[in-house]
Amino acid sequence: MNTAEETGGTSPERLSAFSDGVIAIAITLLILEIKVPEAEHGQLGHELGELWPSYIAFAVSFLTIGIMWVNHHNLSRRLVAVDHGLLYLNLALLGAISFIPFPTAVIAEYLREGGSNERSAALLYSIAMIMVSAAFTSLWWHIARRPHLIQAAQRDAVRTHARKASLGIPVYVAVAALSLVSATGALIAFGVIAVAYALNRSE
Amino acid sequence: MNTAEETGGTSPERLSAFSDGVIAIAITLLILEIKVPEAEHGQLGHELGELWPSYIAFAVSFLTIGIMWVNHHNLSRRLVAVDHGLLYLNLALLGAISFIPFPTAVIAEYLREGGSNERSAALLYSIAMIMVSAAFTSLWWHIARRPHLIQAAQRDAVRTHARKASLGIPVYVAVAALSLVSATGALIAFGVIAVAYALNRSE
Amino acid sequence: MNTAEETGGTSPERLSAFSDGVIAIAITLLILEIKVPEAEHGQLGHELGELWPSYIAFAVSFLTIGIMWVNHHNLSRRLVAVDHGLLYLNLALLGAISFIPFPTAVIAEYLREGGSNERSAALLYSIAMIMVSAAFTSLWWHIARRPHLIQAAQRDAVRTHARKASLGIPVYVAVAALSLVSATGALIAFGVIAVAYALNRSE
Amino acid sequence: MNTAEETGGTSPERLSAFSDGVIAIAITLLILEIKVPEAEHGQLGHELGELWPSYIAFAVSFLTIGIMWVNHHNLSRRLVAVDHGLLYLNLALLGAISFIPFPTAVIAEYLREGGSNERSAALLYSIAMIMVSAAFTSLWWHIARRPHLIQAAQRDAVRTHARKASLGIPVYVAVAALSLVSATGALIAFGVIAVAYALNRSE
Repeated sequence: MNTAEETGGTSPERLSAFSDGVIAIAITLLILEIKVPEAEHGQLGHELGELWPSYIAFAVSFLTIGIMWVNHHNLSRRLVAVDHGLLYLNLALLGAISFIPFPTAVIAEYLREGGSNERSAALLYSIAMIMVSAAFTSLWWHIARRPHLIQAAQRDAVRTHARKASLGIPVYVAVAALSLVSATGALIAFGVIAVAYALNRSE
Repeated sequence: MNTAEETGGTSPERLSAFSDGVIAIAITLLILEIKVPEAEHGQLGHELGELWPSYIAFAVSFLTIGIMWVNHHNLSRRLVAVDHGLLYLNLALLGAISFIPFPTAVIAEYLREGGSNERSAALLYSIAMIMVSAAFTSLWWHIARRPHLIQAAQRDAVRTHARKASLGIPVYVAVAALSLVSATGALIAFGVIAVAYALNRSE
Repeated sequence: MNTAEETGGTSPERLSAFSDGVIAIAITLLILEIKVPEAEHGQLGHELGELWPSYIAFAVSFLTIGIMWVNHHNLSRRLVAVDHGLLYLNLALLGAISFIPFPTAVIAEYLREGGSNERSAALLYSIAMIMVSAAFTSLWWHIARRPHLIQAAQRDAVRTHARKASLGIPVYVAVAALSLVSATGALIAFGVIAVAYALNRSE
Repeated sequence: MNTAEETGGTSPERLSAFSDGVIAIAITLLILEIKVPEAEHGQLGHELGELWPSYIAFAVSFLTIGIMWVNHHNLSRRLVAVDHGLLYLNLALLGAISFIPFPTAVIAEYLREGGSNERSAALLYSIAMIMVSAAFTSLWWHIARRPHLIQAAQRDAVRTHARKASLGIPVYVAVAALSLVSATGALIAFGVIAVAYALNRSE
């Protein structure tokens, strides 16, 4: 029984195409969470302005999922085969990514409210980010430890990526702790992390 | 009139790509069924906890559709041609899969409620699972009985798969019966079946 | 200026892939129009049964869009080039197809109500079907009259298809007239037409 | 470090496929913003007619996104490589496109209302159009200034396209100004611009 048989014949190309599809859908569904505001006569401009937490949450989640798309391809292009564990770790990652629209909507709704609701929303958002980061890190380590899944020339690069990905988890846990103090601060921190990541050219 | 003409020229590759698209969308739409809870001041954390049936239903449906994606590819990669019946049986399978977000939302809404509503929701969910299983089993038997649709080397494997797929239906019917006694039990049973399936490496 | 330049270089393959994407999404979004019913204690089973118009409308629209997918491929596989008019006629067809979830939701909501609301809903649904049929027929005639867009061996077949597609419009107009008498009858007629089409093996 | 490494190995083909996916989803989600109207007995026909702003907004946004699809391919087919900046400018463009369903829903809701709410809605819609146009123009200039990203034979054509794209911004800003006077006028102007663009055959 070879690897292709074990996974129902799923190739790296097919894994990548299906993952791209789920990521493209999750990123586009984010907009559905911004609801048309009800406005009294003459108040729509004001009400649209009041939605600023929705716009920020949309932007941060969009950029975060967009970076996951770039990262996912960075991983999948190094594969030569897909095994059983990789298939289901990848499904876990896609589940975490497709979960993001929910905490995005929750934080958009409660960010203006202050008090413990705001912090609960930011904590939920942080947990979602930690789940994505943990699933992605697990994927890197899974292939780093199974050289038969990757191109021979990529082994060192994959180990480096796995180690780098591991660093994301404590950063996200730190922001989760920050969310207990300031929800807006936590959301901005996720945005800053994403922008810093995007600006940082690494191979 | 050859097979390609009969089906408007649908190739196995195109059937597979369209099916992948529908499955990727159905799996990602699941999150839309989890609605942002309304919370009194200081109650959001509690309300988010109360949504546990939504999280479980999301996870079970996500894993089930994810496994259907793996299974569908396991079938379609053995095809060399697509006939008329296969095209419409596949459409029935996609219809059953894309129906899943509705019973998922129903069971998430009513799982906490107890009484007959809870059991009605679990029964609807079970029926959806049985429809998916029946459509998928029909697809396997359709190609098992039409050797010209599959690679010659795959005939024995396809018959084995068709027989295995048939076993899923009585299992799902048994869980449907369980749903009349315990809705939560039925949902957990579907989750256990999916995890067991995912852990079981079979070619 | 050749044809590829004129259309920004859109190839038949890319036209087909984008159309497949839109069709796959439209067919999967149909389920979002079935809303979780509100049920008193012990009434969920009854309320789920009351949703029968939603289930029928879902099934009819799903099958209709599914057939459009088969038909669209039947057309696009005969192309060797895409011109400007084809590009925008195709966009009109995709617009009509992606509009279908709205009349599907309207007819599901009002089918039980009786009176003129029911007939208005069925008329809207009929208009949507006529728009899809008219756009698709226009596509066939567009390529039938421009032999440089299609494979030489396909010219006769394309003219035959264009003539056959034209027949769909009066049938749909007749069902639209029927919708003024019986909304349920009209919806069933659309279902029967779709099933008859699916069962009829034509190249 | 070559360009492919710098961007995680994203090829023009993959950039194009992911963008197509997001655009196909955004264009199909537009329909979800048209809600089933509540109607008294015998009033559904009237209520469906009252939704005319929704139909117009759907049509204008659908055509605008459809044209963006054609344009995006017109750009991406000239690429030979993808660099870091292109990747994130493209993500910004996709963010702007996937934002469109929200202002479309807002203008559909408030277009009949008159007064300043109507103008606020039209202004929001105009801002969304300006963002799309600005992101797309930035993409053209980005590649026009980096000849290593494009085919040698395409350099002059790309500069011409970048200059033409720049002209779209003042046109959209002018319509934004018009939206402060007449919201319906602004929406119609966007429709006219889109139709004029679609009818104008340019390579």
